[in-house]
Amino acid sequence: MVVNKVGREIPKQYADQYGVYAGEEANLADYQLATKQVHPVKPRDNKQLASIHDAIVQTGLKDGMTISFHHHFREGDYVMNMVLAEIARMGIKNISIAPSSIANVHAPLIDYIKQGVVTNITSSGLRDKVGAAISEGILANPVVIRSHGGRARAIVRGDIHIDVAFLGAPSSDEYGNVNGTKGKATCGSLGYAMVDAQYADQVVVITDSLVPYPNTPISIPQTLVDYVVVVDAIGDPEGIAKGATRFTKNPKELLIAEYAAKMITGSAYFKNGFSFQTGTGGAALAVTRFLKEAMIENNIKASFVLGGITNAMADLLTDGLVEKIIDVQDFDHPSAISLGNNPDHYEIDANMYASPLSKGAVINQLDVAILSALEVDTDFNVNVITGSDGVLRGASGGHSDTSAACKMSMVIAPVVRGRIPTIVDQVTTIVTPGSSVDVVVTELGVAINPQRTDLIDMFKASRIPQVTIEELKTKAYQITGEPAPIQYGDQTVALIEYRDGTLIDVVKNV
Amino acid sequence: MVVNKVGREIPKQYADQYGVYAGEEANLADYQLATKQVHPVKPRDNKQLASIHDAIVQTGLKDGMTISFHHHFREGDYVMNMVLAEIARMGIKNISIAPSSIANVHAPLIDYIKQGVVTNITSSGLRDKVGAAISEGILANPVVIRSHGGRARAIVRGDIHIDVAFLGAPSSDEYGNVNGTKGKATCGSLGYAMVDAQYADQVVVITDSLVPYPNTPISIPQTLVDYVVVVDAIGDPEGIAKGATRFTKNPKELLIAEYAAKMITGSAYFKNGFSFQTGTGGAALAVTRFLKEAMIENNIKASFVLGGITNAMADLLTDGLVEKIIDVQDFDHPSAISLGNNPDHYEIDANMYASPLSKGAVINQLDVAILSALEVDTDFNVNVITGSDGVLRGASGGHSDTSAACKMSMVIAPVVRGRIPTIVDQVTTIVTPGSSVDVVVTELGVAINPQRTDLIDMFKASRIPQVTIEELKTKAYQITGEPAPIQYGDQTVALIEYRDGTLIDVVKNV
Repeated sequence: MVVNKVGREIPKQYADQYGVYAGEEANLADYQLATKQVHPVKPRDNKQLASIHDAIVQTGLKDGMTISFHHHFREGDYVMNMVLAEIARMGIKNISIAPSSIANVHAPLIDYIKQGVVTNITSSGLRDKVGAAISEGILANPVVIRSHGGRARAIVRGDIHIDVAFLGAPSSDEYGNVNGTKGKATCGSLGYAMVDAQYADQVVVITDSLVPYPNTPISIPQTLVDYVVVVDAIGDPEGIAKGATRFTKNPKELLIAEYAAKMITGSAYFKNGFSFQTGTGGAALAVTRFLKEAMIENNIKASFVLGGITNAMADLLTDGLVEKIIDVQDFDHPSAISLGNNPDHYEIDANMYASPLSKGAVINQLDVAILSALEVDTDFNVNVITGSDGVLRGASGGHSDTSAACKMSMVIAPVVRGRIPTIVDQVTTIVTPGSSVDVVVTELGVAINPQRTDLIDMFKASRIPQVTIEELKTKAYQITGEPAPIQYGDQTVALIEYRDGTLIDVVKNV
Repeated sequence: MVVNKVGREIPKQYADQYGVYAGEEANLADYQLATKQVHPVKPRDNKQLASIHDAIVQTGLKDGMTISFHHHFREGDYVMNMVLAEIARMGIKNISIAPSSIANVHAPLIDYIKQGVVTNITSSGLRDKVGAAISEGILANPVVIRSHGGRARAIVRGDIHIDVAFLGAPSSDEYGNVNGTKGKATCGSLGYAMVDAQYADQVVVITDSLVPYPNTPISIPQTLVDYVVVVDAIGDPEGIAKGATRFTKNPKELLIAEYAAKMITGSAYFKNGFSFQTGTGGAALAVTRFLKEAMIENNIKASFVLGGITNAMADLLTDGLVEKIIDVQDFDHPSAISLGNNPDHYEIDANMYASPLSKGAVINQLDVAILSALEVDTDFNVNVITGSDGVLRGASGGHSDTSAACKMSMVIAPVVRGRIPTIVDQVTTIVTPGSSVDVVVTELGVAINPQRTDLIDMFKASRIPQVTIEELKTKAYQITGEPAPIQYGDQTVALIEYRDGTLIDVVKNV
């Protein structure tokens, strides 16, 4: 065992392989960009193939290779299941999959794991059934959980080498020019897929909307695509927007949102040209609405909003309250449409969004980020990947990335959820180190990280109720009682990479 | 000496180093993508430097390194001269330069060569004074002439490794997001520069128009940029458009244009969804105008036009006669403005435009290309790089790329220019092999390449006067007399790379 900088024990074999977390910027060294094998496409070559089967044959996919997918279709994705079903049918085994994330819809994966078709997984997250099955220990090798920026870093540095990327495309021409704003299953930005396309040896575009050449705008260009396959349907438009929430009416969430918005508007960052990222969830959307009112009232315009984009962000652009939307992913249909129609709504890839090893990600320019949490501990460490029962059910997302890079990172969370405390002594799993978390906003008040003495000074005269993180924990435990320790097994079922590639925590089987 | 497939003698040392031309697709093998060293930019790092001097210091530029520039400012470029002046002042020697092309405005280069500051050059072209000086033999090592697609190939495969790219940016923010459609010296597309930015170890953006973050649209993203330097002026807008010509009134050029347009409209390619590239020059612009009239008359709409874009192309888009403009370079101000304003006017990089080693360049989808020539010989070989006196004064450009890839390549040229024959027994220098050239259009009629039996059939009933290439040569020599052979020296002053990287010809000193 090796103990890392946030006090977590990392089994020696993984510590040796990945290194252990030693601080936000301790492992951002110069590196050689990953390379790939390229098969040139000649003037009279044709890229279109009749089926996913033919694409698997043509790419020469075989046992032991790594394939990737993007998660822009979220709960509406058909692509990963279709491709894995064909791979399983063809008898190919021991495949490593590197999707940008895994959703509930991917539950068939459980069988492919049990059959030995899939033997390695890296992902941002694992939901319900798949997460529970992994936590039970069905996969011999631990899943590697990577943040969105960390995944980009891993691909760009060659920590992950993708042999074949199977990329669902809302629209494509026959030569592989792809975008996500036209077609039947429009998902908007293809920010995660763009990285795969650039670094995978081979790229198979799978589309249900073949359009005349040349398809523009171009998110993934023909120069990165080997084959194009047309199928009946790549995704369910309903599922793409699933989970995108409306404005909350929950009084606790509204109070949290009000405090969060007041922290922003009361900060030195709130001025013309400021920037922010909020994300989804009822409280986050409410923050955006409160912020909008304050921007109108104070005649303040933001330079950009970032991230996972929602309708609420698109409205800010339409209303002239932000100059630009910088978009790596869309959470609903209106934001996908906005990307297609508004030149100030701009698509970027995950490397530009959040990689710690690029020549500067957009999050480095971000003022304020609103982030969620399953748990926050008294060291401000945040868990967004496991439940209080230790079972994998969340996603790393851009949490550790934006927290580390932005000027004021704010975690919004209720003190308790039902009978489960959110503010705890020690989080079940650390995804984001406390040193990156500046403010925790709850319905009982806000706790500023004592390391941010500048923020403490900034909010000295603030009328927002201020508390210590210990006080929040005490309140939580008063309601729920002290949580009983989780009984883990001996198997490591997940490695939690910090964005730089070192291990910040591991998850054991339960 | 090694004799290549088009019969040219290549000195053994260069034949060994580069290989010799063996056919259009003989050397398009799988390859490993070039890589580069990356220095990550951390959240609170600042990229802006006070001067070009500081940028040279910060990049650690030293003797023997390779630097690159783009030629989008054409005769208006200030950047290459400014950077080389500072490098010379600092006493750095033995620099290899890899600009996408070299213009008359770069005459100061002659002194830097003589001083030993610059000792290797690769470029698409060499004009007047620099070309003449190189032809005199002032540079010990031969200049490597590469086509636009060949340069992209060389960078992408690592045949050229750029240590530092100095990229003039019409607009940039302080983090290095660059486009060519805003600012003082708007050049439009930055298609050549985009390749350098992607593969150079370090990128210095030099701008005279610093704009608020985030600058969009983004031709070169912040993730590829190390430093940003603001200077008073990067280029002369007048010079950018210099040489862009108006509609010709020369009867000979008009006749050539009329024949060329009739060849297109009389071909099987002329139907809804066809595509073409014309370029600049009085006759080429006239072809575009005649074609426009035919498109209106026949109610035909093109899917895309490609290439170096002019006002005439932008007008076709505005008039609804083409669906898309695919743009690697703009030749005048109106086309640069069109790129900034019209979402169907789309910017691409040189790799996507024309590289023979990408997964499919746009030229592979092109129906018809109109190309110029300094000389064409009876084997249909084309010279666009040396004058009839053997002196370097032209540019390879996209000539060999588009000729090889499109469905019908048409070279338009008068039979004679003054007292110099254009149609000759053997071209002075081969840039494009005759196997790529389908039709030669002159004022005395058109000659179809006998290899294209399908085209000969297609135009059997055509009323356009048809001649053999030998007849054209005979007519030319009747007017000018047979040209006297050029007296070359023993020094190889230029290597003419075919687009695949092999040598198709060499140029000796005169």
